[in-house]
Amino acid sequence: MGGDHGPRVTVPAAINYLQSHSETDIILVGLPDVIELELRSHKFAPSPRMRVQAASEVIGMDESPALALRGKKNSSMRVAINLVKSGEAQACVSAGNTGALIATARFVLKTLPGIDRPALAVVLPTIRGHTYVLDLGANVDCTAEHLLQFGVMGATLVSSVENKEKPSVGLLNIGEEEIKGNEVVKQAAELLRDSGLNFYGNIEGNDIYKGTTDVVVCDGFVGNVALKTSEGVAQMLSIFLREEFRRNLLTRFASLIAIPVIKAFKRRIDHRRYNGASLLGLRGIVIKSHGSADSLAFGFAIARAVDEVRGGMLRHISERVAQLPHHFKNSSSYHRPLAEERPA
Amino acid sequence: MGGDHGPRVTVPAAINYLQSHSETDIILVGLPDVIELELRSHKFAPSPRMRVQAASEVIGMDESPALALRGKKNSSMRVAINLVKSGEAQACVSAGNTGALIATARFVLKTLPGIDRPALAVVLPTIRGHTYVLDLGANVDCTAEHLLQFGVMGATLVSSVENKEKPSVGLLNIGEEEIKGNEVVKQAAELLRDSGLNFYGNIEGNDIYKGTTDVVVCDGFVGNVALKTSEGVAQMLSIFLREEFRRNLLTRFASLIAIPVIKAFKRRIDHRRYNGASLLGLRGIVIKSHGSADSLAFGFAIARAVDEVRGGMLRHISERVAQLPHHFKNSSSYHRPLAEERPA
Repeated sequence: MGGDHGPRVTVPAAINYLQSHSETDIILVGLPDVIELELRSHKFAPSPRMRVQAASEVIGMDESPALALRGKKNSSMRVAINLVKSGEAQACVSAGNTGALIATARFVLKTLPGIDRPALAVVLPTIRGHTYVLDLGANVDCTAEHLLQFGVMGATLVSSVENKEKPSVGLLNIGEEEIKGNEVVKQAAELLRDSGLNFYGNIEGNDIYKGTTDVVVCDGFVGNVALKTSEGVAQMLSIFLREEFRRNLLTRFASLIAIPVIKAFKRRIDHRRYNGASLLGLRGIVIKSHGSADSLAFGFAIARAVDEVRGGMLRHISERVAQLPHHFKNSSSYHRPLAEERPA
Repeated sequence: MGGDHGPRVTVPAAINYLQSHSETDIILVGLPDVIELELRSHKFAPSPRMRVQAASEVIGMDESPALALRGKKNSSMRVAINLVKSGEAQACVSAGNTGALIATARFVLKTLPGIDRPALAVVLPTIRGHTYVLDLGANVDCTAEHLLQFGVMGATLVSSVENKEKPSVGLLNIGEEEIKGNEVVKQAAELLRDSGLNFYGNIEGNDIYKGTTDVVVCDGFVGNVALKTSEGVAQMLSIFLREEFRRNLLTRFASLIAIPVIKAFKRRIDHRRYNGASLLGLRGIVIKSHGSADSLAFGFAIARAVDEVRGGMLRHISERVAQLPHHFKNSSSYHRPLAEERPA
């Protein structure tokens, strides 16, 4: 039900996904009337492969996460995450309120043993392909241990969904030299060096888009600023380019000739293809779609969820964390079976 | 002498500047033989308006700032900053080792009363014009008070060089809501609200390039990541655009037609026009040019130095700091006349 557009986007995305992927079933969670109306408008009806799970409440995009968690126990978000906990669903995909999604998922699913805090990982395009960056805003005051955990989770995500045995991990810093950076980052570099990960070392902001490493580790504050700043640059450049093409009759003529090039360029950096941030470190798979996603973008978020389930990501993260040095396992989390290990 | 190219860039930039600005004199500091050879190659000789000040040492771009400060007391950088301290020069422009420049400038010139740490401010292009961002890497572990000081210095810089009476100041955060952000940023927001500055409130990464505020305040770690990330995005997009224009005969034809547009676009975002970071908070004006600057770019750094001298920036910052609430003035700096107040 969530996101800026609600079922008008999520329902058609689910229908499209279902029609092209015969091995996946989808449960639509929310106000049944609204969902069924949307299904009908696409000449679709609930079926065993796409059933509707009723939830009587909806969390607003601006609602306080804490209040939503306490007050709306029958929200579509909460019910969907409950389905993951019970094993009825293997993943939850939501375009809703980010803070509420993180708080609810953390409260209901709990973190994996050895993981203190969940982290949000996104995929970003690079000159060479793409890279995974985490955290993107779930954690704003991180310790070195948290950054280490992000490194482990990010590397495991990449090896699970991309079949890379030893993904390289870079630590976002303000210089490649070991002496640079703030205290937390310097300590994190030491932990990462001893972690058994394929740790590349410090990288700088421009390395994200150079594709220097498969995984980029940073705290949620820095990651969020980097992501939003990137959006800002891309937006400004696209406005400048459009303005230059519209400057006079001659440039307008050039723009006509260049249309196929500009279209190919835009397709290549289309952020919708990168929609779907992975909430990592929980005992269940949760994907956060951008709130303003359209149905194409939301489809990519669904595909990401399926990739993570298929890649056995939860199991891999648990195994990977268990191999880490002792200091890393002093976590308050207790061990219980993972959602994906239990029968569906 | 500093930077990746040394006098091959800085000397012609100085000559060009001098020829088009009759009211400015320039002192070239460094190894006299090298500088004079470069002057001769441009058919120029030392003159009262462009004299050479000998310095026997050069600090390498990768040298440790601490070692450079202790060991090279006759480096071109140190001698140039000494000239600012003695009042012989009103500003120093260097393309050299950033860490060494900050350490030397801080040691020789000292901070202004009320300012704990110098900060690096850069100008970035925005959709509406440009904005000043600080800190860009001089300070990686900042307190809320430091961020407040950055706000004051940034606002004063803008009002000094751009004649804006009340420049707006934004605090870089990960959400516009007051509850968001890490602890330091939340406290900084409170201090900025009570500072008498035209405080806009929290802004996000994309607001930098939207031009939401005249000044963007952040700690040096975040600022450096934001800047480098921006460079990375711009570089990636430009590579993608070039690749699309080179894809086949048709797109190559389109690129020929679009040449004037692409050129205008590139001119508009030419980073050389934004070269020259201001090292703020010291008892003297110091401008850091990008190490890889060419002579056009270095000329912009010289122009920035002149603008700051002419705008009376040092005096304005001192006055502005004196007006701040008491807690802000508990600085270890003691008061002595500013370089620009003393006779030349």
